[in-house]
Amino acid sequence: MSHDPAEAKPDHEQDRKFLLRAVELSRSRMEAGLGGPFGAVLVRDGEIIAEGWNEVTSSLDPTAHAEVTAIRRACQAVGDFLLKGATLYSSCEPCPMCLAATYWARVDRLVYANTRRQAASIGFDDEFLYEEIPRDPASRSLPTRHVPLPEAEHVFDLWAAKADKIAY
Amino acid sequence: MSHDPAEAKPDHEQDRKFLLRAVELSRSRMEAGLGGPFGAVLVRDGEIIAEGWNEVTSSLDPTAHAEVTAIRRACQAVGDFLLKGATLYSSCEPCPMCLAATYWARVDRLVYANTRRQAASIGFDDEFLYEEIPRDPASRSLPTRHVPLPEAEHVFDLWAAKADKIAY
Repeated sequence: MSHDPAEAKPDHEQDRKFLLRAVELSRSRMEAGLGGPFGAVLVRDGEIIAEGWNEVTSSLDPTAHAEVTAIRRACQAVGDFLLKGATLYSSCEPCPMCLAATYWARVDRLVYANTRRQAASIGFDDEFLYEEIPRDPASRSLPTRHVPLPEAEHVFDLWAAKADKIAY
Repeated sequence: MSHDPAEAKPDHEQDRKFLLRAVELSRSRMEAGLGGPFGAVLVRDGEIIAEGWNEVTSSLDPTAHAEVTAIRRACQAVGDFLLKGATLYSSCEPCPMCLAATYWARVDRLVYANTRRQAASIGFDDEFLYEEIPRDPASRSLPTRHVPLPEAEHVFDLWAAKADKIAY
């Protein structure tokens, strides 16, 4: 897949244009009753490859945040599980789920408007999750049990030895 | 939706049974070429409500980790965007994306076998992401730009004032 490496360099006029599109999505989809006030746009080579908005409550999917939805759609649109060369524009700082998804998709650059603190001020857990995730599993609010199993370790050994694996 | 609150209390025999099922999925789906060596099972009231496995490379979806896939399927199965009362069994410690998804779904409890360090040893970024996510956005490896916009703040105000919103 070809893409212009210059895409990853900041272009402030372009940033503003695509970020305002993400904000427009955050407003219109929220007003349509689809979910929370969040929108996202993925751009490569100066073109939008996918748009997303929060669909948690309308699609009954707690993972259907704007950024995750945009990433899924972009991957389907370009026929790849990686989005190298793309910039993610989000109306709000991504939560840890969406930020990790951005890394897994190998997006080149992130631009956002509202912050996790502003999200917290209207009732969302983004900031709380940024505090929870770095904690040791035993000290998180989510009760967690680690049960080492030789069977599970063996599957990792099989992966390490697998000749035809597709890495990601 | 009714569920037994006792579900959230550890039952070591039950934990072992469902964790071994998650491991079995991690092996069989990897061997079928569907993705990485990861499986997950969601259980409520002693019954499996959904199973998931890594489908990143086969479904062209970088968010299709075992836990996220299990959460999505469980929500569709029970008709709710929350999974209160459920326990997530994963063949490996969830990455930050999957861990945050577990919180967003309000799962009660997490049980896992392999660790993020073992995942790192076979080439996965889970441990790296646990280091990246707590960092200040400006010091992450992902180039990030924060552009405050009054338009974006206004959408949050609209959400705060929205009378018919569905919180999550």
